[in-house]
Amino acid sequence: MKHYDVYSRLKELGIELPPSAAPAAAYKMACRSGGLVYLSGHIARKDGAVWQGKLGAGMSTEEGRLAARLVAIDLLATLHVHVGDLNRVRQIARVGSMVNSAPDFMDQHLVTNGASELFADIFGERGGHARSAFGVAQLPLGACVEIELCAEVE
Amino acid sequence: MKHYDVYSRLKELGIELPPSAAPAAAYKMACRSGGLVYLSGHIARKDGAVWQGKLGAGMSTEEGRLAARLVAIDLLATLHVHVGDLNRVRQIARVGSMVNSAPDFMDQHLVTNGASELFADIFGERGGHARSAFGVAQLPLGACVEIELCAEVE
Amino acid sequence: MKHYDVYSRLKELGIELPPSAAPAAAYKMACRSGGLVYLSGHIARKDGAVWQGKLGAGMSTEEGRLAARLVAIDLLATLHVHVGDLNRVRQIARVGSMVNSAPDFMDQHLVTNGASELFADIFGERGGHARSAFGVAQLPLGACVEIELCAEVE
Repeated sequence: MKHYDVYSRLKELGIELPPSAAPAAAYKMACRSGGLVYLSGHIARKDGAVWQGKLGAGMSTEEGRLAARLVAIDLLATLHVHVGDLNRVRQIARVGSMVNSAPDFMDQHLVTNGASELFADIFGERGGHARSAFGVAQLPLGACVEIELCAEVE
Repeated sequence: MKHYDVYSRLKELGIELPPSAAPAAAYKMACRSGGLVYLSGHIARKDGAVWQGKLGAGMSTEEGRLAARLVAIDLLATLHVHVGDLNRVRQIARVGSMVNSAPDFMDQHLVTNGASELFADIFGERGGHARSAFGVAQLPLGACVEIELCAEVE
Repeated sequence: MKHYDVYSRLKELGIELPPSAAPAAAYKMACRSGGLVYLSGHIARKDGAVWQGKLGAGMSTEEGRLAARLVAIDLLATLHVHVGDLNRVRQIARVGSMVNSAPDFMDQHLVTNGASELFADIFGERGGHARSAFGVAQLPLGACVEIELCAEVE
Protein backbone atom coordinates (compact mmCIF):
# COMPACT_ATOMS: atom_id res chain seq x y z
CA MET A 1 0.00 0.00 0.00
CA LYS A 2 2.97 2.31 0.62
CA HIS A 3 4.01 4.16 -2.49
CA TYR A 4 7.48 4.96 -1.26
CA ASP A 5 9.70 5.07 1.75
CA VAL A 6 9.31 8.31 3.69
CA TYR A 7 13.02 8.62 4.42
CA SER A 8 13.94 8.21 0.72
CA ARG A 9 11.43 10.90 -0.07
CA LEU A 10 12.95 13.22 2.55
CA LYS A 11 16.36 12.60 0.96
CA GLU A 12 15.03 13.32 -2.54
CA LEU A 13 13.70 16.64 -1.27
CA GLY A 14 17.03 17.41 0.41
CA ILE A 15 15.44 17.55 3.86
CA GLU A 16 17.45 16.54 6.89
CA LEU A 17 15.45 16.08 10.09
CA PRO A 18 16.78 18.31 12.86
CA PRO A 19 17.10 17.10 16.45
CA SER A 20 13.63 17.01 17.99
CA ALA A 21 12.68 20.26 19.75
CA ALA A 22 12.49 20.36 23.54
CA PRO A 23 9.35 21.69 25.18
CA ALA A 24 9.62 25.35 26.19
CA ALA A 25 7.69 24.53 29.36
CA ALA A 26 5.92 21.85 31.46
CA TYR A 27 4.54 19.53 28.80
CA LYS A 28 5.60 16.96 26.21
CA MET A 29 6.23 17.41 22.50
CA ALA A 30 4.07 14.38 21.68
CA CYS A 31 1.47 12.27 23.41
CA ARG A 32 0.06 8.99 22.13
CA SER A 33 -3.46 7.86 22.84
CA GLY A 34 -4.53 4.65 21.14
CA GLY A 35 -3.77 4.91 17.46
CA LEU A 36 -3.49 8.71 17.56
CA VAL A 37 -0.41 10.80 18.27
CA TYR A 38 -0.96 14.39 19.31
CA LEU A 39 1.97 16.71 18.65
CA SER A 40 2.27 19.88 20.68
CA GLY A 41 2.15 23.23 18.94
CA HIS A 42 5.65 23.71 17.52
CA ILE A 43 6.81 27.29 17.02
CA ALA A 44 8.82 28.46 14.03
CA ARG A 45 12.60 28.40 14.31
CA LYS A 46 15.32 29.64 11.99
CA ASP A 47 19.01 28.91 12.44
CA GLY A 48 18.30 27.39 15.85
CA ALA A 49 16.49 30.41 17.29
CA VAL A 50 12.81 31.32 17.50
CA TRP A 51 11.67 32.96 14.27
CA GLN A 52 9.91 36.04 15.55
CA GLY A 53 7.54 38.15 13.54
CA LYS A 54 3.99 39.14 12.82
CA LEU A 55 2.43 38.57 9.44
CA GLY A 56 1.17 41.77 7.89
CA ALA A 57 3.48 43.82 10.12
CA GLY A 58 6.95 43.55 8.64
CA MET A 59 6.69 39.90 7.60
CA SER A 60 5.47 38.76 4.18
CA THR A 61 3.21 35.85 3.25
CA GLU A 62 6.15 34.22 1.46
CA GLU A 63 8.31 34.40 4.59
CA GLY A 64 5.44 33.01 6.65
CA ARG A 65 5.05 30.17 4.22
CA LEU A 66 8.71 29.25 4.59
CA ALA A 67 8.35 29.46 8.38
CA ALA A 68 5.39 27.06 8.23
CA ARG A 69 7.44 24.68 6.09
CA LEU A 70 10.23 24.73 8.68
CA VAL A 71 7.71 24.06 11.46
CA ALA A 72 6.44 21.08 9.46
CA ILE A 73 9.98 19.69 9.27
CA ASP A 74 10.31 20.09 13.04
CA LEU A 75 6.97 18.29 13.50
CA LEU A 76 8.27 15.43 11.35
CA ALA A 77 11.41 15.28 13.50
CA THR A 78 9.29 14.96 16.64
CA LEU A 79 7.06 12.37 15.00
CA HIS A 80 10.12 10.40 13.91
CA VAL A 81 11.51 10.35 17.45
CA HIS A 82 8.15 9.53 19.00
CA VAL A 83 6.90 6.87 16.58
CA GLY A 84 10.31 5.46 15.67
CA ASP A 85 9.53 5.05 11.98
CA LEU A 86 7.73 7.62 9.84
CA ASN A 87 6.61 4.84 7.51
CA ARG A 88 4.24 3.78 10.25
CA VAL A 89 2.27 7.01 9.88
CA ARG A 90 -1.07 6.00 8.39
CA GLN A 91 -2.55 9.43 8.06
CA ILE A 92 -1.85 13.02 9.00
CA ALA A 93 -5.35 13.55 10.40
CA ARG A 94 -5.54 17.16 11.53
CA VAL A 95 -3.34 20.24 11.43
CA GLY A 96 -3.96 23.37 13.48
CA SER A 97 -2.07 26.47 12.38
CA MET A 98 -1.84 29.60 14.48
CA VAL A 99 -0.43 32.52 12.51
CA ASN A 100 0.80 35.59 14.40
CA SER A 101 -1.23 38.20 12.54
CA ALA A 102 -1.74 41.92 12.32
CA PRO A 103 -5.49 42.67 12.55
CA ASP A 104 -5.76 43.09 8.78
CA PHE A 105 -3.68 40.12 7.56
CA MET A 106 -5.94 37.63 5.77
CA ASP A 107 -3.62 35.06 4.19
CA GLN A 108 -3.27 32.55 7.02
CA HIS A 109 -4.28 29.81 4.57
CA LEU A 110 -1.42 30.65 2.19
CA VAL A 111 1.09 30.76 5.06
CA THR A 112 -0.13 27.39 6.30
CA ASN A 113 0.26 25.86 2.84
CA GLY A 114 3.99 25.83 3.52
CA ALA A 115 3.29 23.01 5.97
CA SER A 116 0.39 21.30 4.19
CA GLU A 117 2.26 21.03 0.91
CA LEU A 118 5.27 19.51 2.63
CA PHE A 119 3.09 16.83 4.25
CA ALA A 120 1.61 16.01 0.84
CA ASP A 121 5.10 15.91 -0.72
CA ILE A 122 6.39 13.56 1.97
CA PHE A 123 3.45 11.28 2.63
CA GLY A 124 1.42 11.43 -0.60
CA GLU A 125 -2.21 10.44 0.00
CA ARG A 126 -1.46 9.75 3.65
CA GLY A 127 -0.39 13.39 4.04
CA GLY A 128 -3.82 14.84 3.20
CA HIS A 129 -5.36 16.29 6.36
CA ALA A 130 -8.18 18.32 7.82
CA ARG A 131 -6.92 21.75 8.76
CA SER A 132 -7.76 24.92 10.61
CA ALA A 133 -5.70 28.08 10.09
CA PHE A 134 -6.35 31.34 11.85
CA GLY A 135 -4.69 34.56 12.93
CA VAL A 136 -3.70 34.96 16.56
CA ALA A 137 -2.86 38.10 18.52
CA GLN A 138 0.56 36.80 19.57
CA LEU A 139 2.53 33.58 20.13
CA PRO A 140 4.94 32.26 22.76
CA LEU A 141 8.35 33.94 22.51
CA GLY A 142 7.05 36.12 19.68
CA ALA A 143 7.13 33.29 17.12
CA CYS A 144 5.54 34.03 13.75
CA VAL A 145 3.81 30.66 13.35
CA GLU A 146 2.81 27.76 15.61
CA ILE A 147 1.49 24.47 14.25
CA GLU A 148 0.04 21.43 16.03
CA LEU A 149 -0.75 18.07 14.50
CA CYS A 150 -2.68 14.88 15.11
CA ALA A 151 -1.63 11.74 13.22
CA GLU A 152 -2.88 8.19 13.03
CA VAL A 153 -0.11 5.62 13.37
CA GLU A 154 0.12 1.83 13.07
CA MET B 1 -32.01 4.31 19.10
CA LYS B 2 -32.45 7.03 16.44
CA HIS B 3 -35.25 9.43 17.25
CA TYR B 4 -35.69 10.70 13.73
CA ASP B 5 -34.15 10.78 10.33
CA VAL B 6 -31.64 13.61 9.96
CA TYR B 7 -32.73 14.44 6.42
CA SER B 8 -36.40 14.69 7.43
CA ARG B 9 -35.33 17.02 10.20
CA LEU B 10 -33.35 19.19 7.76
CA LYS B 11 -36.44 19.37 5.56
CA GLU B 12 -38.65 20.33 8.51
CA LEU B 13 -36.27 23.17 9.29
CA GLY B 14 -36.25 24.25 5.65
CA ILE B 15 -32.52 23.64 5.30
CA GLU B 16 -31.10 22.56 1.98
CA LEU B 17 -27.51 21.34 2.07
CA PRO B 18 -25.31 23.36 -0.28
CA PRO B 19 -22.64 21.71 -2.44
CA SER B 20 -19.69 20.84 -0.20
CA ALA B 21 -17.08 23.60 -0.01
CA ALA B 22 -13.75 23.14 -1.73
CA PRO B 23 -10.57 23.66 0.27
CA ALA B 24 -9.08 27.15 -0.18
CA ALA B 25 -5.63 25.59 -0.16
CA ALA B 26 -3.54 22.39 0.09
CA TYR B 27 -5.62 20.27 2.43
CA LYS B 28 -8.87 18.29 2.60
CA MET B 29 -12.24 19.37 3.97
CA ALA B 30 -12.54 16.16 6.01
CA CYS B 31 -10.24 13.41 7.20
CA ARG B 32 -11.33 10.16 8.80
CA SER B 33 -9.28 8.38 11.40
CA GLY B 34 -10.88 5.28 12.91
CA GLY B 35 -14.35 6.19 14.12
CA LEU B 36 -13.61 9.92 14.12
CA VAL B 37 -14.03 12.38 11.28
CA TYR B 38 -12.16 15.65 11.52
CA LEU B 39 -13.63 18.49 9.50
CA SER B 40 -11.40 21.36 8.48
CA GLY B 41 -12.13 24.83 9.70
CA HIS B 42 -14.93 26.10 7.44
CA ILE B 43 -15.18 29.85 6.95
CA ALA B 44 -18.45 31.75 6.80
CA ARG B 45 -20.03 32.28 3.38
CA LYS B 46 -23.04 34.27 2.30
CA ASP B 47 -24.56 34.12 -1.18
CA GLY B 48 -21.63 32.04 -2.36
CA ALA B 49 -18.92 34.48 -1.29
CA VAL B 50 -16.80 34.73 1.84
CA TRP B 51 -18.67 36.58 4.58
CA GLN B 52 -16.12 39.11 5.69
CA GLY B 53 -16.29 41.06 8.91
CA LYS B 54 -15.02 41.54 12.41
CA LEU B 55 -17.28 41.17 15.41
CA GLY B 56 -17.33 44.32 17.51
CA ALA B 57 -16.13 46.39 14.56
CA GLY B 58 -19.08 46.93 12.27
CA MET B 59 -20.59 43.47 12.74
CA SER B 60 -23.16 42.62 15.40
CA THR B 61 -23.49 39.55 17.59
CA GLU B 62 -26.74 38.69 15.83
CA GLU B 63 -25.08 38.78 12.41
CA GLY B 64 -22.22 36.66 13.75
CA ARG B 65 -24.69 34.16 15.09
CA LEU B 66 -26.30 33.83 11.67
CA ALA B 67 -22.85 33.45 10.10
CA ALA B 68 -22.07 30.63 12.56
CA ARG B 69 -25.35 28.94 11.65
CA LEU B 70 -24.46 29.10 7.96
CA VAL B 71 -21.01 27.63 8.70
CA ALA B 72 -22.73 24.80 10.57
CA ILE B 73 -24.87 24.05 7.50
CA ASP B 74 -21.72 23.97 5.36
CA LEU B 75 -20.12 21.60 7.88
CA LEU B 76 -23.16 19.32 7.60
CA ALA B 77 -22.85 19.40 3.81
CA THR B 78 -19.21 18.30 4.04
CA LEU B 79 -20.08 15.63 6.58
CA HIS B 80 -22.87 14.36 4.34
CA VAL B 81 -20.51 14.06 1.37
CA HIS B 82 -17.75 12.49 3.43
CA VAL B 83 -19.78 10.02 5.50
CA GLY B 84 -22.45 9.35 2.91
CA ASP B 85 -25.33 9.32 5.39
CA LEU B 86 -25.77 11.83 8.20
CA ASN B 87 -27.81 9.25 10.11
CA ARG B 88 -24.53 7.43 10.73
CA VAL B 89 -23.26 10.32 12.87
CA ARG B 90 -23.14 8.96 16.41
CA GLN B 91 -22.03 12.12 18.10
CA ILE B 92 -20.82 15.61 17.32
CA ALA B 93 -17.86 15.34 19.69
CA ARG B 94 -16.08 18.67 19.56
CA VAL B 95 -16.56 22.06 17.95
CA GLY B 96 -13.87 24.72 17.73
CA SER B 97 -15.09 28.21 16.88
CA MET B 98 -12.76 31.01 15.87
CA VAL B 99 -14.51 34.37 15.86
CA ASN B 100 -12.86 37.31 14.09
CA SER B 101 -12.97 39.78 16.98
CA ALA B 102 -12.14 43.34 17.82
CA PRO B 103 -10.00 43.43 20.99
CA ASP B 104 -13.01 44.31 23.14
CA PHE B 105 -15.64 41.94 21.72
CA MET B 106 -16.60 39.38 24.37
CA ASP B 107 -19.60 37.48 22.96
CA GLN B 108 -17.85 34.70 21.05
CA HIS B 109 -20.03 32.18 22.93
CA LEU B 110 -23.24 33.83 21.71
CA VAL B 111 -21.98 33.96 18.14
CA THR B 112 -21.02 30.29 18.30
CA ASN B 113 -24.48 29.35 19.58
CA GLY B 114 -25.67 29.85 16.02
CA ALA B 115 -23.83 26.64 15.17
CA SER B 116 -24.33 24.75 18.44
CA GLU B 117 -28.07 25.25 18.44
CA LEU B 118 -28.33 24.02 14.87
CA PHE B 119 -26.48 20.82 15.74
CA ALA B 120 -28.86 20.24 18.65
CA ASP B 121 -31.85 20.94 16.40
CA ILE B 122 -30.67 18.50 13.76
CA PHE B 123 -29.17 15.69 15.80
CA GLY B 124 -30.92 15.94 19.16
CA GLU B 125 -28.88 14.26 21.90
CA ARG B 126 -26.24 13.22 19.40
CA GLY B 127 -25.68 16.88 18.57
CA GLY B 128 -24.48 17.84 22.07
CA HIS B 129 -20.75 18.57 21.92
CA ALA B 130 -17.74 19.87 23.77
CA ARG B 131 -16.83 23.30 22.49
CA SER B 132 -14.20 25.99 22.53
CA ALA B 133 -14.98 29.48 21.27
CA PHE B 134 -12.50 32.32 21.20
CA GLY B 135 -11.70 35.60 19.49
CA VAL B 136 -8.99 35.63 16.86
CA ALA B 137 -7.07 38.56 15.39
CA GLN B 138 -8.08 37.72 11.83
CA LEU B 139 -9.20 34.83 9.60
CA PRO B 140 -8.36 33.60 6.10
CA LEU B 141 -9.86 35.84 3.40
CA GLY B 142 -11.22 38.13 6.09
CA ALA B 143 -14.00 35.74 7.10
CA CYS B 144 -15.99 36.68 10.21
CA VAL B 145 -16.20 33.15 11.65
CA GLU B 146 -14.37 29.84 11.16
CA ILE B 147 -15.58 26.60 12.72
CA GLU B 148 -13.99 23.14 12.84
CA LEU B 149 -15.62 19.94 14.04
CA CYS B 150 -14.83 16.42 15.12
CA ALA B 151 -17.58 13.80 14.93
CA GLU B 152 -17.87 10.16 15.82
CA VAL B 153 -19.41 8.07 13.06
CA GLU B 154 -20.56 4.44 12.74
CA MET C 1 0.32 0.60 37.54
CA LYS C 2 -1.17 3.50 39.48
CA HIS C 3 1.35 5.30 41.61
CA TYR C 4 -1.16 6.91 43.90
CA ASP C 5 -4.78 7.75 44.32
CA VAL C 6 -5.70 11.01 42.58
CA TYR C 7 -8.04 12.12 45.36
CA SER C 8 -5.37 11.63 48.03
CA ARG C 9 -3.03 13.69 45.90
CA LEU C 10 -5.61 16.46 45.57
CA LYS C 11 -5.97 16.42 49.34
CA GLU C 12 -2.20 16.59 49.87
CA LEU C 13 -2.10 19.66 47.64
CA GLY C 14 -5.00 21.22 49.54
CA ILE C 15 -7.20 21.30 46.45
CA GLU C 16 -10.94 20.94 46.78
CA LEU C 17 -12.82 20.34 43.56
CA PRO C 18 -15.48 23.01 43.00
CA PRO C 19 -18.94 22.18 41.64
CA SER C 20 -18.60 21.51 37.93
CA ALA C 21 -19.12 24.62 35.79
CA ALA C 22 -22.28 24.97 33.73
CA PRO C 23 -22.00 25.75 30.04
CA ALA C 24 -22.35 29.46 29.24
CA ALA C 25 -24.29 28.51 26.12
CA ALA C 26 -25.73 25.71 23.96
CA TYR C 27 -23.16 22.96 24.42
CA LYS C 28 -21.87 20.45 26.97
CA MET C 29 -18.89 20.74 29.31
CA ALA C 30 -17.66 17.28 28.29
CA CYS C 31 -18.29 14.82 25.49
CA ARG C 32 -17.08 11.24 25.37
CA SER C 33 -16.20 9.48 22.16
CA GLY C 34 -14.80 5.98 22.54
CA GLY C 35 -11.90 6.12 24.99
CA LEU C 36 -11.49 9.88 24.66
CA VAL C 37 -13.20 12.60 26.65
CA TYR C 38 -13.22 16.08 25.16
CA LEU C 39 -13.67 18.88 27.67
CA SER C 40 -15.02 22.21 26.47
CA GLY C 41 -12.91 25.29 26.78
CA HIS C 42 -13.26 26.38 30.42
CA ILE C 43 -12.79 30.07 31.14
CA ALA C 44 -10.97 31.39 34.20
CA ARG C 45 -13.03 32.11 37.30
CA LYS C 46 -12.10 33.70 40.60
CA ASP C 47 -14.38 33.78 43.63
CA GLY C 48 -17.23 32.41 41.55
CA ALA C 49 -17.09 35.11 38.86
CA VAL C 50 -15.37 35.27 35.48
CA TRP C 51 -11.77 36.37 35.89
CA GLN C 52 -11.52 39.11 33.33
CA GLY C 53 -8.29 40.54 32.01
CA LYS C 54 -5.81 40.73 29.19
CA LEU C 55 -2.25 39.58 29.62
CA GLY C 56 0.22 42.33 28.89
CA ALA C 57 -2.46 44.98 29.45
CA GLY C 58 -2.89 45.31 33.19
CA MET C 59 -2.47 41.63 34.00
CA SER C 60 0.87 39.99 34.81
CA THR C 61 2.25 36.63 33.75
CA GLU C 62 2.12 35.49 37.38
CA GLU C 63 -1.58 36.34 37.66
CA GLY C 64 -2.22 34.57 34.37
CA ARG C 65 -0.41 31.52 35.64
CA LEU C 66 -2.65 31.40 38.70
CA ALA C 67 -5.69 31.82 36.48
CA ALA C 68 -4.56 28.87 34.37
CA ARG C 69 -4.11 26.80 37.52
CA LEU C 70 -7.66 27.60 38.59
CA VAL C 71 -8.97 26.65 35.16
CA ALA C 72 -7.14 23.34 35.49
CA ILE C 73 -8.89 22.68 38.79
CA ASP C 74 -12.24 23.44 37.13
CA LEU C 75 -11.34 21.05 34.32
CA LEU C 76 -10.61 18.35 36.89
CA ALA C 77 -13.96 19.01 38.53
CA THR C 78 -15.73 18.51 35.19
CA LEU C 79 -13.68 15.40 34.46
CA HIS C 80 -14.55 14.01 37.88
CA VAL C 81 -18.27 14.53 37.30
CA HIS C 82 -18.13 13.16 33.78
CA VAL C 83 -15.90 10.13 34.29
CA GLY C 84 -16.99 9.39 37.84
CA ASP C 85 -13.50 8.54 39.08
CA LEU C 86 -10.37 10.51 38.25
CA ASN C 87 -8.29 7.38 38.86
CA ARG C 88 -9.70 6.07 35.59
CA VAL C 89 -7.88 8.80 33.64
CA ARG C 90 -5.19 7.00 31.66
CA GLN C 91 -3.62 10.03 30.10
CA ILE C 92 -4.15 13.74 29.74
CA ALA C 93 -3.61 13.66 25.98
CA ARG C 94 -3.89 17.23 24.74
CA VAL C 95 -4.32 20.67 26.25
CA GLY C 96 -5.26 23.76 24.25
CA SER C 97 -4.68 27.09 25.99
CA MET C 98 -6.08 30.35 24.69
CA VAL C 99 -4.57 33.33 26.47
CA ASN C 100 -6.27 36.73 26.17
CA SER C 101 -3.24 38.72 25.01
CA ALA C 102 -2.19 42.22 24.15
CA PRO C 103 -0.48 42.21 20.73
CA ASP C 104 2.98 42.27 22.31
CA PHE C 105 2.53 39.71 25.12
CA MET C 106 4.75 36.68 24.43
CA ASP C 107 4.57 34.52 27.55
CA GLN C 108 1.54 32.37 26.79
CA HIS C 109 3.67 29.29 27.53
CA LEU C 110 4.49 30.52 31.04
CA VAL C 111 0.86 31.35 31.74
CA THR C 112 -0.22 27.92 30.56
CA ASN C 113 2.33 26.24 32.82
CA GLY C 114 -0.04 27.02 35.67
CA ALA C 115 -2.30 24.31 34.26
CA SER C 116 0.33 21.92 32.91
CA GLU C 117 2.21 21.78 36.18
CA LEU C 118 -0.95 21.03 38.10
CA PHE C 119 -1.76 18.11 35.81
CA ALA C 120 1.75 16.74 36.34
CA ASP C 121 1.40 17.22 40.11
CA ILE C 122 -1.93 15.41 40.21
CA PHE C 123 -1.48 12.62 37.69
CA GLY C 124 2.28 12.10 37.55
CA GLU C 125 3.33 10.44 34.28
CA ARG C 126 -0.29 10.22 33.19
CA GLY C 127 -0.50 14.00 33.42
CA GLY C 128 2.10 14.66 30.69
CA HIS C 129 0.35 16.00 27.61
CA ALA C 130 0.77 17.53 24.18
CA ARG C 131 -0.05 21.20 24.30
CA SER C 132 -0.71 24.28 22.23
CA ALA C 133 -0.71 27.73 23.80
CA PHE C 134 -1.36 30.93 21.91
CA GLY C 135 -2.55 34.48 22.34
CA VAL C 136 -6.08 35.36 21.33
CA ALA C 137 -7.64 38.73 20.62
CA GLN C 138 -10.40 38.27 23.20
CA LEU C 139 -12.36 35.56 25.06
CA PRO C 140 -16.01 34.99 25.99
CA LEU C 141 -17.13 37.30 28.80
CA GLY C 142 -13.71 38.94 28.80
CA ALA C 143 -12.01 35.99 30.53
CA CYS C 144 -8.22 36.13 30.76
CA VAL C 145 -7.61 32.45 29.96
CA GLU C 146 -9.58 29.60 28.37
CA ILE C 147 -8.33 26.01 28.37
CA GLU C 148 -9.69 22.89 26.67
CA LEU C 149 -8.56 19.33 27.22
CA CYS C 150 -8.72 15.86 25.71
CA ALA C 151 -8.11 12.89 27.99
CA GLU C 152 -7.96 9.14 27.49
CA VAL C 153 -10.01 7.23 30.05
CA GLU C 154 -10.50 3.57 30.91
